[in-house]
Amino acid sequence: MDDVIYLDHAATSAPKPERVAARIARYLQMEGLSAGRGSYRRAVTIGQEIEGGRKKLASLIHAESADRVVFTTSGTEALNLALGCLGQEPGHVIVTSWEHNSVLRPLAAAADRGVTITEVEPGADGRTDPGDVRAAITSETKLICCVHASNVTGVIQPVGEICQLAKERGILSLIDAAQTVGHLPIDVQEMGCSLLAAPCHKGLLAPLGTGFLYLQPGLEDRIPPLQFGGTGTQSEQAVQPAELPYRYESGSRNVPGLIGLAASLEAMSPESIADDAAHQRELTAFCLDRLKGIPGVTVSLPDLPGELRVGVLSLNVEGQDPRVVGTILDEYFQIEVRTGFHCAPQAHQWLGTAELGGTVRISFGSTTSESEIEKLADALQQIAGSF
Amino acid sequence: MDDVIYLDHAATSAPKPERVAARIARYLQMEGLSAGRGSYRRAVTIGQEIEGGRKKLASLIHAESADRVVFTTSGTEALNLALGCLGQEPGHVIVTSWEHNSVLRPLAAAADRGVTITEVEPGADGRTDPGDVRAAITSETKLICCVHASNVTGVIQPVGEICQLAKERGILSLIDAAQTVGHLPIDVQEMGCSLLAAPCHKGLLAPLGTGFLYLQPGLEDRIPPLQFGGTGTQSEQAVQPAELPYRYESGSRNVPGLIGLAASLEAMSPESIADDAAHQRELTAFCLDRLKGIPGVTVSLPDLPGELRVGVLSLNVEGQDPRVVGTILDEYFQIEVRTGFHCAPQAHQWLGTAELGGTVRISFGSTTSESEIEKLADALQQIAGSF
Repeated sequence: MDDVIYLDHAATSAPKPERVAARIARYLQMEGLSAGRGSYRRAVTIGQEIEGGRKKLASLIHAESADRVVFTTSGTEALNLALGCLGQEPGHVIVTSWEHNSVLRPLAAAADRGVTITEVEPGADGRTDPGDVRAAITSETKLICCVHASNVTGVIQPVGEICQLAKERGILSLIDAAQTVGHLPIDVQEMGCSLLAAPCHKGLLAPLGTGFLYLQPGLEDRIPPLQFGGTGTQSEQAVQPAELPYRYESGSRNVPGLIGLAASLEAMSPESIADDAAHQRELTAFCLDRLKGIPGVTVSLPDLPGELRVGVLSLNVEGQDPRVVGTILDEYFQIEVRTGFHCAPQAHQWLGTAELGGTVRISFGSTTSESEIEKLADALQQIAGSF
Repeated sequence: MDDVIYLDHAATSAPKPERVAARIARYLQMEGLSAGRGSYRRAVTIGQEIEGGRKKLASLIHAESADRVVFTTSGTEALNLALGCLGQEPGHVIVTSWEHNSVLRPLAAAADRGVTITEVEPGADGRTDPGDVRAAITSETKLICCVHASNVTGVIQPVGEICQLAKERGILSLIDAAQTVGHLPIDVQEMGCSLLAAPCHKGLLAPLGTGFLYLQPGLEDRIPPLQFGGTGTQSEQAVQPAELPYRYESGSRNVPGLIGLAASLEAMSPESIADDAAHQRELTAFCLDRLKGIPGVTVSLPDLPGELRVGVLSLNVEGQDPRVVGTILDEYFQIEVRTGFHCAPQAHQWLGTAELGGTVRISFGSTTSESEIEKLADALQQIAGSF
């Protein structure tokens, strides 16, 4: 694997940190147990390990308390759970053009019960203008959904301003932090979001099968569980318990994933996240600089300043289907990237890349190096020059 | 861990088979990738590995095709998904007294929209009489839910007869196979069930965070997804794809869990499952025999023949709270069992163990030995004799 250059960290971090892999391997070989259900000591200990991860994550994002962080099995599950705040009644929702299908598809399904959606397009620089969001608010608006950073272009959205104006109008805000948690400092108090959803297997470096939802105090009264069932609490009652986080964590959880998360979080701190943010900015600036000079390669939003970007870039090679470029990068250069629409169809409508078959997406992780980006640029130069 | 006797296999199998632990450890250290999303070869290979597991599982349960087996992250998620067949209208559902909170709690929530529930109590031998189920059917009955084997007493239900009579009346049937898949041969065609839900981390020996739902052909038209989002297919469309299994598998999946499942299933066959069934019967008969002679120890359904049981037993020690017995077994004898209600409150109403605080549950796995049961019996004898 040493020869492979992995540039699909926006999909999932890979490989996982040694401490994560080692902890899970030991768990599967020696323990394998459930957590928070049995009362025997080993099960209690594993439950405490998972709760330690929850506390650490809550503290990193400045949640009011650990129980306001609900574990899910993916960012998608967290977003679907959050969208339960719309209830079963009609209502109006505002989204940006950068939203993921994990927001757009649940909302498309909610359209059946009369939920209407307004998409706010970004300005020329890719940033959604809070003024445009304000202008889209109607008396029926219940929720504003905004991705913290686009998984297509990496552009960071003015989420603080958007959450603030939602709050002023008594509207809920839902932030999709899939590309930012672990890569950028996040403070849900300062941001003022009602809900923040993310996977744990991207910037938080946990295994796939993990995600979380932060809910502002009181929102549990408005959001029904996606699943009902055994919670390990009040087992004698046939009604779902109301307490957080159990209300939303029915069934046996993904224990290997969650102890992997706890192991990963042990090595994370506000300082390590700030370092990663700086590393991502450096890599992105280096990559943009290298790509700019290649004839036939067009980067989306090339002039966006570094402080408004995470380590995710989209590009197209003139006259080439992105899938073909991806296949050549993989098969001839051992460089792994994502191609296509990246589950964000509206982004491509706005970028004008829908008719091109989407984009080639390059995304960086904490282990990505400048020499890997150098090799990518060389490969793209050869590909663009050979057609 | 060599000293610990683990008798909580009904919660989850533990530890996991070496082939499962080794495959996941290698994946996390070397790969860690997403599957079915990227087009690069390593992601495609991992996707194929997961699809190999799906095919194997479909073949073991005699599903019409692999795509009728939908992966979930738990048995609870599979049951909640299945219960979507009730739609949003009122209707009548029949359950047995042995159902788990993963069925009872979603139904309790559905009561808000006018779903009514009839609980059919078992006969004196613990078996639900299909005649009683037939008598409970009304013109409004939409669904019959029946656990294949109780997670409290291990009693196997006449699921084939119950599914048959549901079919004759045009009613759907949902079988909860949590305690049987991997432990007993299952043939969904012969059983005639509409839906069969189970975790994969119990009898199938995969890690926690895995489950599945089998759906009879056509049912996907009646069951909405629990979650909408990215499926890696038709990424350019903001509407959920209709095809199985993608319709129900939104978001990045639990790849380590699913490749662990594939690794586990490689070693499973109809023969290995039949062997495990025989092993469970032998262990259960041995345990029942040893426990019978102990004064003060009462086993639930002691006279049920071996062919009507899986390897799960409940017992009470006279005058003792089950939790206290469990704690003594753990702390003084290094024997791990589950105590309480086991998320099946109605079972304890029927058994008369609700006011006792539930039961002590003993459950066996493929690695359980007679000498471990011998030690359990000795420990229980000491505990019962010392009060």
